[in-house]
Formats: sequence, structure tokens, C-alpha cells
Amino acid sequence: MDWEIWSKNLDKEDLVVNEAAVGGYEEHSPGRGMNGAGGPTAMMDPLEDPVPGVGTYEDFNTIDWVREKSKDRDRHREITSKSKESMGALLHRISDAFSGWLLMLLVGLMSGALAGGIDISAHWLTDMKEGVCLNGFWFNHEHCCWTSNEPTFKERDKCPDWKSWAELIVGTGEGGFAYVVNYMMFMFWALLFSFLAVTLVKSFAPYACGSGIPEIKTILSGFIIRGYLGKWTLIVKTITLVLAVSSGLSLGKEGPLVHVACCCANILCHLFTKYRKNEAKRREVLSAAAAVGVSVAFGAPIGGVLFSLEEVSYYFPLKTLWRSFFAALVAAFTLRSINPFGNSRLVLFYVEFHAPWHLLELGPFILLGIFGGLWGALFIRANIAWCRRRKTTLLGHYPIVEVLVVAGVTALVSFPNSYTRMSGAELIKELFNDCSLLDSSQLCRYKQDTNATAGTSAGNGLADRPADSGLYTALWQLSLALLFKMGITVVTFGMKVPSGLFIPSMAVGAIAGRLLGVGMEQLAYYNHDWAIFRGWCTPGADCITPGLYAMVGAAACLGGVTRMTVSLVVIMFELTGGLEYIVPLMAATMTSKWVADAFGREGIYEAHIRLNGYPFLEPKEEFEHKSLAVDVMRPRRADPALAVLTQEGMTVEEAEALVASTRYSGFPVVVSQESQRLVGFVLRRDLLISIDNARQRQEGVVSSSQVLFTEHPPAQAADAPPPVRLRSLLDLSPFTVADHTPMDITVDIFRKLGLRQCLVTHNGRLLGIITKKDILKHMAQMANRDPDSILFN
Amino acid sequence: MDWEIWSKNLDKEDLVVNEAAVGGYEEHSPGRGMNGAGGPTAMMDPLEDPVPGVGTYEDFNTIDWVREKSKDRDRHREITSKSKESMGALLHRISDAFSGWLLMLLVGLMSGALAGGIDISAHWLTDMKEGVCLNGFWFNHEHCCWTSNEPTFKERDKCPDWKSWAELIVGTGEGGFAYVVNYMMFMFWALLFSFLAVTLVKSFAPYACGSGIPEIKTILSGFIIRGYLGKWTLIVKTITLVLAVSSGLSLGKEGPLVHVACCCANILCHLFTKYRKNEAKRREVLSAAAAVGVSVAFGAPIGGVLFSLEEVSYYFPLKTLWRSFFAALVAAFTLRSINPFGNSRLVLFYVEFHAPWHLLELGPFILLGIFGGLWGALFIRANIAWCRRRKTTLLGHYPIVEVLVVAGVTALVSFPNSYTRMSGAELIKELFNDCSLLDSSQLCRYKQDTNATAGTSAGNGLADRPADSGLYTALWQLSLALLFKMGITVVTFGMKVPSGLFIPSMAVGAIAGRLLGVGMEQLAYYNHDWAIFRGWCTPGADCITPGLYAMVGAAACLGGVTRMTVSLVVIMFELTGGLEYIVPLMAATMTSKWVADAFGREGIYEAHIRLNGYPFLEPKEEFEHKSLAVDVMRPRRADPALAVLTQEGMTVEEAEALVASTRYSGFPVVVSQESQRLVGFVLRRDLLISIDNARQRQEGVVSSSQVLFTEHPPAQAADAPPPVRLRSLLDLSPFTVADHTPMDITVDIFRKLGLRQCLVTHNGRLLGIITKKDILKHMAQMANRDPDSILFN
Repeated sequence: MDWEIWSKNLDKEDLVVNEAAVGGYEEHSPGRGMNGAGGPTAMMDPLEDPVPGVGTYEDFNTIDWVREKSKDRDRHREITSKSKESMGALLHRISDAFSGWLLMLLVGLMSGALAGGIDISAHWLTDMKEGVCLNGFWFNHEHCCWTSNEPTFKERDKCPDWKSWAELIVGTGEGGFAYVVNYMMFMFWALLFSFLAVTLVKSFAPYACGSGIPEIKTILSGFIIRGYLGKWTLIVKTITLVLAVSSGLSLGKEGPLVHVACCCANILCHLFTKYRKNEAKRREVLSAAAAVGVSVAFGAPIGGVLFSLEEVSYYFPLKTLWRSFFAALVAAFTLRSINPFGNSRLVLFYVEFHAPWHLLELGPFILLGIFGGLWGALFIRANIAWCRRRKTTLLGHYPIVEVLVVAGVTALVSFPNSYTRMSGAELIKELFNDCSLLDSSQLCRYKQDTNATAGTSAGNGLADRPADSGLYTALWQLSLALLFKMGITVVTFGMKVPSGLFIPSMAVGAIAGRLLGVGMEQLAYYNHDWAIFRGWCTPGADCITPGLYAMVGAAACLGGVTRMTVSLVVIMFELTGGLEYIVPLMAATMTSKWVADAFGREGIYEAHIRLNGYPFLEPKEEFEHKSLAVDVMRPRRADPALAVLTQEGMTVEEAEALVASTRYSGFPVVVSQESQRLVGFVLRRDLLISIDNARQRQEGVVSSSQVLFTEHPPAQAADAPPPVRLRSLLDLSPFTVADHTPMDITVDIFRKLGLRQCLVTHNGRLLGIITKKDILKHMAQMANRDPDSILFN
Repeated sequence: MDWEIWSKNLDKEDLVVNEAAVGGYEEHSPGRGMNGAGGPTAMMDPLEDPVPGVGTYEDFNTIDWVREKSKDRDRHREITSKSKESMGALLHRISDAFSGWLLMLLVGLMSGALAGGIDISAHWLTDMKEGVCLNGFWFNHEHCCWTSNEPTFKERDKCPDWKSWAELIVGTGEGGFAYVVNYMMFMFWALLFSFLAVTLVKSFAPYACGSGIPEIKTILSGFIIRGYLGKWTLIVKTITLVLAVSSGLSLGKEGPLVHVACCCANILCHLFTKYRKNEAKRREVLSAAAAVGVSVAFGAPIGGVLFSLEEVSYYFPLKTLWRSFFAALVAAFTLRSINPFGNSRLVLFYVEFHAPWHLLELGPFILLGIFGGLWGALFIRANIAWCRRRKTTLLGHYPIVEVLVVAGVTALVSFPNSYTRMSGAELIKELFNDCSLLDSSQLCRYKQDTNATAGTSAGNGLADRPADSGLYTALWQLSLALLFKMGITVVTFGMKVPSGLFIPSMAVGAIAGRLLGVGMEQLAYYNHDWAIFRGWCTPGADCITPGLYAMVGAAACLGGVTRMTVSLVVIMFELTGGLEYIVPLMAATMTSKWVADAFGREGIYEAHIRLNGYPFLEPKEEFEHKSLAVDVMRPRRADPALAVLTQEGMTVEEAEALVASTRYSGFPVVVSQESQRLVGFVLRRDLLISIDNARQRQEGVVSSSQVLFTEHPPAQAADAPPPVRLRSLLDLSPFTVADHTPMDITVDIFRKLGLRQCLVTHNGRLLGIITKKDILKHMAQMANRDPDSILFN
């Protein structure tokens, strides 16, 4: 429905042509993935209006924010003015005012409950790869051994009720053969889960793949992707997310949880007319839902709200801030009452550090930041190159094979190394952990300091100690895990399964951080007389916390990949709860962003948005070029003149011919062809429908009837056919800019007001038109990119 | 410099007339308060440009955000393009990119240091009212008794080095006469401090009075108040803030700290050309400084950033969010390293509660919310009525007397009641406190449960216990303190001393909350068999925490007065550090806002902005009326036609006559009087300066020379005098809207783009103009308020 949208008949054709040309939108086109029984229509979400009516938008189009907000204000005005008349209307007004809050409550409850379910199921299925519980196969390992009487966690893990597959099949859990059996079973389950996941996605909801954040960013900026947030996507994404996470692939569930929460919000919006009928209002709810998603993913409600504000949202009024916060809290507490981690903690990784950090440690923290930035930049390049290859080569035609191969390789390589075998979240938890004396983890295998005196802090087991050989083994394993994770994540993100990036990115950073941390710790232990360690790293002092390094590394890598800043630091702050550790996190995040930005300004989500050719006008990026509106507008100098309607003097036939000869979605109306003074703007569809209506219902309208956009009909010959009066169709306040307006200002206007198109005038005469797509094309041209990569309006 | 600004000569006159008419801006006009030696010019800040040059703005005018941002982008483009040429230019580009961060660092350091100094001095002077340290008069009470060997805090407070005034003067601290002496000395110091404070403000920096937040909101929205953030204001505000707080007046230092931080930022901006020369960029820094202010006030960096975002800022891009966060952190850590509270805590009130809250307690929390909302609404009405009375009656002419009377009454009434005698911050700290067994506070005088068994939780002293008579006395004192604080705060806020509202509002709420909390506790203790208490309030259980009630009450009252939401909850969350208590806080804050909004949508800051007639376009309020642009624009139907210049055909004389006959700050330029097709917009001052220049420097220019705004000069008679070519002055991209544009959309455009004026066209012909002031007047009219209350452009 934009200036240059393909007309209805051409729509699908054009899409396919474009796809072939640049490998554009293939995996997201619902018509493609759904070649199974039932076809697209059968799978269509009944809650979505299948055929857009008047005043709604077609698929793959941009909404007009100004119009939508104006519509909502009209609605609100009407309710307010009516409310003075009767009691019922007053109640309606009150219920209308509170419906937003009710909706937020429902979104929070539903998303929290779903997240709890996902956590529990993923935990169960992940353990299923290793063994089964004899008390009931539906228990996970921890739950199965809950009632065990063993005193330590280590012992409790080996409770008799829990049998590894080798124990069940061969009868013993020890020995080489048992190892092989366990290995095979591990691979079997991994392949099974990933096969189920990709098959479900491919057959039932192609929109369920990926993290969903790039698409949600685009949707929030005003794009329509019908069905992307529908019921089927929600159901399939929830199920396949569990399967994908459990299959051991290098992916996380945090990003997809944002998509799940947005689906919940979109579905719940249908309960309230206010939100169902207004695309702008609905996007406010979706912004809040993005906050809810992060809130349940990490147990960080404030971080979630800031994530939505910083990373995802386009239009985020203060009212939404407050409501997002409410929804995020409801969701977090719902999740906690489900208690999927069994520790009544709100947060995903609860960390408590005992030692403060020293100013000199900022050095290694900044090093981690540099590592994170480099990794982020490298990852984005490699991943985009790989995704482009997937689009352009045969690889893209066999998504199931691709997933199975990657899952197989992942399982094959993961199993021997305990740090890759465990899930990403568990790995991060282990790496963040601060070693206490009783800790049985391999990462805490320090030599016991036998001659420590009871009075010093060494007595409480928290002091720095020399590493044991167990720890060295762990470090080797971690190094291998680091290399493996770095490689496999690049090919995993973008496959046809739900896949989040948060956990794999954090895992890479956490491993690097922990390695550096242990290194620093040992360096300080053996060289505590060095000038830099003197004074704060005396023997027996607890001066370096490797867990903190892991945390800083995780933040740095996640920052490098996503370019989040405030929200990232706040999420991490909510994990530890101590303001102390904000400074290291901030130093690393800042460094990481600067380093990564030096190699390319785009985060992974923006890169994927561009890869898919969505019409997204990045709100963060400044428009740096010196063009004027006249350089960007259409028609270009070589093109035919702008197709305009005149407010009087055109016949029905002429108007129809003009519409038929172009594919534009709207036409400016001018006073006369000579003056080119702008009167208003009329939409193609409205015009066609109205002329059709007039022909059918209005007495005497023929092809030679005049089409009138004027307020008062001009004097006509008495025998002339009655005119078709269409003034009510006109948008009398189309946005205009002067031809000499610098493009940076024009882009600002488009962004801030959420325009779809803007007319260009010179000294009061209409000269041309600029659409969002024209701007994006111009920006692509300026950056020496392919301007045809922008596919949609 | 706006459409309708008074020309330079009329400026001061008009201001005075307006003041006389509506009692407008009196206390803020620098020319008024400075009737002492030196006069305004001598006091003028040398860092401020005294006479605005070309491209800058005059005092009391609105900036043009679009132009400022465009200017900055031009500057940035230039640096970027030059940086490819030489190494020096590249270094310049890098230093330019990092100057923002450096500035933030400096703002954080300076504000943190100042806040530390203010805390320490205020603490010292407050104690000075009660006595003096013999070791050195510069020690405060706590510091003086630091080395005392007494075991408990209570005993230590009575260390021999610290002498009350009675002990020094009469020789004994006991007995009636000593009480009277202490009473007199208390009043003497209170009067002295307040006298000093008001005299300093009146003589040296009238802008230093009040909280400063309404003015900062206005400045951030694009208004110019020269000197409001200057060096003198900073110095005087810092000193008088200490004096005002120490005098015992019912005011806080939190709001003024925001002003202090903004002054620091504004002064530091002068070090960097990028920020000195660009009003829009400078406002980004000021937004961050507002965050810094709250960060140091409460030790809540995240809350500070959200406060700036939610409450103060107008234009808050994501880049500023990140930088604000950095500055807020730097400031918080600077303050902590100064350690003014002597407990190395970051936060102003550190609270740790031991018991969780029960869902049923939401009832009383919501009651507190209702109380807070009612109090907020009442306070705003009463305070505004009082301030209006101050402006219109003789009261306003004797600010010193007013302050002395209020300070005298405050001291007189405060002294006998220990809860009013202590400073507001101390009172709140005491009320938030959770009673432990060893607590010697009067609020913790519970009957010792002698037959408590050691095994139950009663043994640790945290269980609910029956109140002692000491507690009942405390409750009576608190009730009286509540009534007194409620009354005195109304008359205190708005006096000619620096005065913040946070602490007094929180104190009112905290008292109410504590009273309700103790009431609930006793109710639960004596009626633990009631159905509602059964199960969670068994005897010996620690089920109700009065401190939490105090905290919730404080949040509710502060919310009712300021209408903060997210930032308030986050600030409170940062005080406790536990996500647990967010839900009660949120419930109370939401209730409070809803209740208060029912009585009037404005918070105290917006109310004061309106009282002072600042041109502030509230970003939160929706424009609810159905007007069109044509209803708001000028000229009105009865007015003479719009004064326009034509692009050719006007002589210098005619142009000068047109300018002289009007007071508009700018003129649209049209193709011809007949066509009224818009070419551009020229500013009054630019036009006058350029014509003057041409007359003086350009050969042959006379009064009959043509003024040309066209690109190419038209053919002229050979003997005609040379034309004055002024196209370079033209703004070729003035904003236009169609006459039928609904005003809600127009208001949205003004807000989002930060416009000063907008031209109105009909079918391509220029029809009129809308300025920000026209919109504000129209909104005032629609709300049945006096449209002439908007004083400035």
C-alpha cells in the first residue's frame, strides 16, 4: 500500500522474482514453506484477518504511524465525549483506560508460564540425552535424585534411581563399551530432537525459525508480516525451541523467548478492540512484550525494559515504559512461582562474589572487551557470509539435512568434552561460579594450602591458591570448547530452527574470561612480589575472582555481537545484584562496542535485517550525507512526470486509466495540471473501491462523469452526467517538505513521525514524492551497497 | 527570536509589563534581584556569551532543534571528510568523538565531589545547631565522637568531646534552663542559616532558588534562560543549599542537586567547542547531568538515568542514555570514595529487611498509595495557590522576611519533637529501619518477650512483639510531626532559597507508612487468630515489617507529588537491592499516580512550569481536542494579512518598512503577493544585519535598490541601482503543514521535531503561521485557562 507497492496481482510474482535475484526473503515467505497438506490457507491463523479490509494494511507493507495514532486519538475522544452522557459509557471509558493494564497483566502471566514450561521441558529433554529416571521417565536428573540421601551434590547426582543409557542397555555405567553406548545414545537423541525441530518448523510454521528479534524490530518499526506473531508460530516455536535447545545445538532460548512473548502479546491483543484494530497501539504492546521476553529469559525485569527501549523498540512512549515494567515484573514473578530452576531465584545465573576488584584489574577487563569486540565483528561477518551462501547456493534447499549435519557434528564433538556436553546455560553458570572451599567442580581444583593459619583469610578457603592438575585439565578442555563454540555458532545461527544468540555468545566470552581469570590468579599467586600485585595480592588474600572475569567476558562478547550497552550492563547487574561490579562490566562493554564498531557499525540483528531486505530505518544511525530531498525524490529527472489527479476536470474514465497505467499505491491530487498546487493525497485502493461503488450505486454515473475532489461542485452543463464526489477520500494533510530540505532532516522526519511517504514541493508546486523505500535505497547507494536489496515497502 | 518575540528594545519593558500583569516571572529575572553593588553586568558570568552573536539565541527564546542538529551534522561531516586528508585531522576526529565521554567523566567527577562536599557541610552545620566539638569546631557530632570508646551508638553519641550549647554556656546539659538555652541556640542558628541563605540568593544569584527542576525541564525542551546554569548560580546554589538544609527548613537537597549537576555540566561544556556552540548537543549533556544529580542524591545510578528519561528530558537519544549511565556511575563512585555518610554505602538510605511480605499486605500498601495520591494532589493545589498568592500580594516583596518567619516557625515547632528536630534524611532513615533486638531507637521499644523459647524465630528478636509505652509516645510524636510537615512543606517549597521536594514528600509518606505499619503489626499481634492473619502471622513469627510500610508510604507520597513512576520504583529498588519489594512499591506508586491524576494531571514540576508561564510543550500529555491547524494559526480571521516578503520586486526601503512595522522575529518569503507560493523563511535579525551590511559595504546600494531572494537576478533596467542579494539568508526548507491538518498531529510534529514555528498552507498557497506559543495558548484556551499566562517564546 505504499507509493510503489506492487498491485495485488503482481504481488506474489514480484516477490518471487526478487527472491531469485538477490536470494531475499525466501525462508520467510509463508507460501513457500507450506507445501505440505493443507496449504497456506489451512494453516492461516484464524485470529488474523485473512483479507485486509478497508483501513487495514496488506502483508509486507509499512503502516502509517501518524494515521494510526490519529485514529486512536479520535477513538479516545469519542469515548471521552460519550462518557459524559450515560453511566454505561462512563464504565466503558474506565474499562477502556484499564484494558491496557489488564492486557499487560495477561501478557506477563502467559509469557511467564510459557517460559517456565519451556525451562522445565528443556531441562528434562536435555537430561534425557544422558539417561532416564526409573521412578518416572518424566523426571529430569535433578528432580529424580531430589529425595536421595547423599550429602553432597556430587554424590547425589549418582543416585540409584537415575540410570544412564549404558546402565540400562549394557547393565554397567563403567568401561569403554558403556562409554560408546552413552555416546551413541547422546547422538541419537540429539539427531532426533533436531530432526523433529526442523521438520515441525518447515511443515507448520516457517516463521518460527531463528531468534525472531530482527523481524520483531522490523515489525515494531511499522512493518506488517502477517502470521509472524500468530498462534501457529507461537505453538510451533515453543515446542521446537525446547527441542532445539535439548538437541545440544549451540543456541540459546533467550532470543526466541522474546518472539514467544511477542506472539503471546499479539494473540492477547485480539481480546481488546483498542489494540486489535490499531497497528500503532498494538506495537506499544509488542514493545512491552519484548521487555517481558528478556525479563523471563534472565529474570531481569529492569534490564528487559531497557533492552526493549534500547535494542528493539521504535516508538516507545513513557506510558509504554511504565507498562512494560509492570508486565516484565508480572512475568518474572510468574516464572519464579513456577520455579523451574528449583532454587526460587528469579535470575538465570545467580552469582555472588566475595572479593572486591582492584583498579588494576581494569587492564584485563579491557582486554576482554577487546576480545569481545573482535569476536563480535568477526562473528557477524562470518555468520552473514554463511547465511548469504545458504541463500544463494544449494545449501538453502536442504534445511533438514543442514540441521541434521550440524546437530550430528555438534553432538559428536561435544560429548567427549564435559564443557561442551553440558548445556550452554549450565556451562555459563559453572564459569561464573566463585570457587568456595567445598566446591567439587573441576574448575575449583586448587591445591589445598595445608599450612594456612586459621586466622588469615586463607582459612576460609577463599584465598588465591595454586592450581591443581585437575584445574589444568579443565583449562585445556575449556580452550578446546572455546574454539569449537566459536566455529559451530557461526553455522548454527540462521538455520531453520529457533535459535538464540545470547547464550552461545555469552558462553564464548565466559570461557575466554575464565581462562584469563585463572591465568591472572596464578600469575598473581606466583608473582605476588611484582610491583603491580604488591599491596592487594599478598599470599593468603582473595584478590582475583576468575568468575568475575568470566562474567565480564560474557558481557563483552554479547556486547560485541549485539551492540547492546545499557541494557546489557543492567541485565548483568541484576544477575549479581551488586553495584560494585558494574564498573568492570561497563569498561568491557564500552571497549567491546568501540572495537566492534570500528569494523562495522551494525549489530547482528541489523545485519540480518539488511540481509533479509526488510524496510527498516535504523533509528540509531545518523544520516551522514549531504544530499537534498530533490536528489532522492521520484520521479528522477529521466522518468516520466509524477502521476497526479486533478481536483476537478478529470472524468471517471481518465482517473481509472491513470490508476491502471501505474502501480503506485496512492496519488497526489492537485488544483490543476498547470499550477501543480497540492490539495491532498488519495490512496489507490480507496479510489478504486469508491469509483466502483459509485458506478454500481449512484444513479447516472458513467465513464464520462467528472471525478471531483473539490468541496463545492463547480457549475456544470445541465445535461452533463452527475459527478462522482470523492473529497471524503482525500487525506487533506499530506506531509510535504521543500525540495531543498537536506536529507538528514528528511530522514529525521521519517523516523520520528513514522511516515510512509512525503511529498516534495518547490515554491508551493508539487514536484515529487519520497517513500521510505526511496530513502533506504538512497542510503544503500551512499554506502555502496546494492540498493535493490530492499525488498519490501 | 520567535515569530512574535519582542524586538530587542521592547524586550525588558515587555517583560516587566507582563510581570506586572500576571505576576509572571518576577523572581527569576536577573535584572531584578541584582540591585546591589556591581549590578547585573558585573555579576554576569564571563563564561556565558554576554551578547548573543549570529546563529545564537537571545535570552528567553526557544531554540530550533532541527537547525541545531543539522548544524552539528554539518560539523561532523566536515570533520569526517577532512580526517581522510591528514594525520592531524584524523586525531581531531578521534578526539572529537571521545570528547563527549571525557565531558561525561568530568561532569561525573565534579558533581560527585560537589555532592560529597554538600553532604559533609550540611551534616556539620546541622549538628552545629545542637552543639559544638571541643576537639575542633569543624567536626560534626559523629566525627567528633568517632574515637570514643563507648560500646553502643547511643552511649557514643554522648561522648565528652561533644558539648551541647547549654553545656558550654550554662555548664550543664540537664534541666529546664539548659533546655531553654539549647532551644534558643537552635532557633538562633536556624534563623542565621536561613537569613544567610536567602540574602545570598537574593543578592548574588536569584536563579539559585527553588529546586530548579521545572526550569531545567523547560531548558531541556529548548528554552534559553541565560545564566540559569552559570557559574554564579552554581556557587551560590551550592553554598545556600547547605545553609538551607542546615537551617532545618522542611526541604531537601535532592532536587537542587540536579540543578547543581546541570550547572557543572553547562560550565564544563565551555571546554569543548562541540558542546559550547551547539544548543542541542549541550542539552544532551544536560540530560545526562540530570541523571547524575539523582545518582548522587540517592546513590541510584540506574534510577537517575530513568529519572532523566522519564521526568526531565525532552530529547533523549540512545547515545545519551549510555553516556548518562556512565556519568551517573562515575558520580556515584566519586561520592562513595568521599564517603560522606561514613559507611561506604553508595545509597542514601540503606535498608535491609528480613521478612518477606504477604500478598494480603497489598491491601494496606494500596491504602498508602491512595494516601500518597491524595496528599500529592492536595499538596500541589495548596502549594500553587500559595505561590500564586506570593506573586500577587505584598508577600512576594519581602522574601527575606518570609524565609525568616518560616524558618523561625519551623525551628520553634521542630525543637520539642525529636522527629521534627532531626533532619529529614535522618528521619526517613530512622523510619525505614527494621528493628533489630539491639536497636535503641524509640521506634523499636517493644516489650521484651521474656518467655520466648530459644528455638523459635522469636529468639532472634525479629518477631512481632507488643508495643511498649515508649513506642506509643513515638507514635504520638510522629503523628504530630506528620501534621506539621504536611503544613510547613506547602509554604516552604517556592521560597527564595534552594529547596527540594523529594525529602519532605518522602518524610510525610514514611511517617504515614510507619504509623500504618506499626498499627498493622500490633493488630496482627493481638489478633493473630483472625482469618486474615492465620497462617502467616502466628505468634513468634516476623510477619509485618513497619519499615517496609514506611518505604512504601514514602514512594507513594513522592509519586503523588511528582508523578514519577518507573524511576521512582527503580530508585527505591536500588535502595533495598531486593527485587522482592518492588511489587509493594509498584502497587503503591501506581495507585498513588492514578488517585492523584484523578484530581489533576499535572505533577508539581509541570504545575510550577505553568505557574511561571514557561513555553513548555508537555511531551506526556495528549492533545485531546478536535481543532485543525487553521483554527490555531495566525493571522486570525479578523487580523491584518500575514506580513510576507516577496522574492523579487521589493525595495530595500519597503523591506525595512515591513520589518519596522512588525515585531515578528521572522518573515516568510513568497514568489509574489498574488500567488503566495512559499519560497522560504528569513529571520528578522539576519535580514536587518545583512541590509545594514549591504548599505555600508556594497557599492551603490540605496533605498530604492531591489531586495532579491531569487537564485538568478531578473533582468533589470541598466540604470537601476545594484540589487541586494539575500538568498543565502533564506531557510529554504521551512516546515509546512496543510490548513486541514488536525492539531493533534501538528502538536506531535512540534514535539517530536522540536519546532519553533511552522507555516500553514492551503492548496500550495501560504496562509499563516503557527508558533509554539500559539499552540500553548490554544491548549490553555481549550483547558479554560488564561492563555496569556504563557509569557515567553
